Amino acid sequence: MSSSKIPVIEIFGPTIQGEGMVIGRKTMFVRTAGCDFRCVWCDSAFTWDGSEKDNIRLLTPSEIFHELKQLGNQNFNHVTISGGNPALIGKPMMEFIELLHEHDIKVGLETQGSRWQDWFRSVDDLTISPKPPSSGMNTDFDVLDSIIENLAGKRISLKVVVFNDEDFDYARMVHKRYDAIDFYLSVGNKDPYESGDISSRLLMSLDWLWSKVMEDPEMNGVRALPQLHALVWANKRGV
Amino acid sequence: MSSSKIPVIEIFGPTIQGEGMVIGRKTMFVRTAGCDFRCVWCDSAFTWDGSEKDNIRLLTPSEIFHELKQLGNQNFNHVTISGGNPALIGKPMMEFIELLHEHDIKVGLETQGSRWQDWFRSVDDLTISPKPPSSGMNTDFDVLDSIIENLAGKRISLKVVVFNDEDFDYARMVHKRYDAIDFYLSVGNKDPYESGDISSRLLMSLDWLWSKVMEDPEMNGVRALPQLHALVWANKRGV
Repeated sequence: MSSSKIPVIEIFGPTIQGEGMVIGRKTMFVRTAGCDFRCVWCDSAFTWDGSEKDNIRLLTPSEIFHELKQLGNQNFNHVTISGGNPALIGKPMMEFIELLHEHDIKVGLETQGSRWQDWFRSVDDLTISPKPPSSGMNTDFDVLDSIIENLAGKRISLKVVVFNDEDFDYARMVHKRYDAIDFYLSVGNKDPYESGDISSRLLMSLDWLWSKVMEDPEMNGVRALPQLHALVWANKRGV
Repeated sequence: MSSSKIPVIEIFGPTIQGEGMVIGRKTMFVRTAGCDFRCVWCDSAFTWDGSEKDNIRLLTPSEIFHELKQLGNQNFNHVTISGGNPALIGKPMMEFIELLHEHDIKVGLETQGSRWQDWFRSVDDLTISPKPPSSGMNTDFDVLDSIIENLAGKRISLKVVVFNDEDFDYARMVHKRYDAIDFYLSVGNKDPYESGDISSRLLMSLDWLWSKVMEDPEMNGVRALPQLHALVWANKRGV
């Protein structure tokens, strides 16, 4: 890959951020290809499983920016960078973030915390989302510790997706380990490829998660949220 | 009313805050009786319409605190004060907030911005929610201006409930007037007394509101959210 380009698999918007620390905010999405993880329930597996490799384009920061402006015109001031794992990308991502900031556009980004990049400090709304046991992945807490330490003094958030009791215990452990950091729980979507209305199923899962939070004195300060986009738009892509 | 007591109509929790700036957070609720407004769609009209006047108790801050501890034990660190309009209450509310802070409990409070109280500055999560045209109420912008001015430098939020296009226009106007303040839109619940599952109806309203936000360049920075408690628990009281 050219060191001045970013592998992009999707650009869309304006849309609404459906989860996490800026839930409900209007944003554009840039989704990068490639991931160092293989979560069994990944809702964006097409970014790494090869099924859409023909859609991957190597774009310069400026090319991505122009595509965003074509799509969104004056109709956005926030861009969400997602993946895959955007933390696999170094210098061109820094340039892209700087370019957005030059145009008074704020940047949200989510990454699993498996790898550090200096540009993390420039992200306005940064979410580190270590993966729970149900993902089939392991957390390298030495790496995560150093990432969190590197971000000391910056307001970031941690987010853990929860599918079951074991995930909830993992989330509690992560929350205790980094207890000064804003902590979000997100309800897992058991079937990100199911067609039709999935809101009843997701709301039942949220009800379950809320009950767990309400009765757990070690989870007093957390925020437990659904994926609003999945409630409103089900599993539709590109929104 | 005794000047050292607060008229309370409901105390419940632990529950989850379903809307606004701390959406998803575990909290206890204290609902005060009495309101200077009569919004036609009020979802807590029992606080002011006389239908539950026998449930109103005059309680000291310490009595409310003990009731909260009995209900929630160690299982909360946040209390939401709602109404009615809690801004009708002066000194005893200040004492109550101080008492909660002494116990490391954070305080969220929502009020329509029709009246100032010095203790606004002590509220951790303060939401000012001026009422849109569909409420049948008028906004006194002289009062609202002075409240917002008094809170300069403090991070607060504005929230406007939106039922229709006219409300949306009102929200845009309020957002422009106070453009430095975090701004939330909340989807109106057209029938807060309907029984059974109302989630489909509410999600359709949210879809409508999101579409309005997505196409409006003057609403780039707002956050548009549902009432999650109504999605999960419908119109149930005391949760």
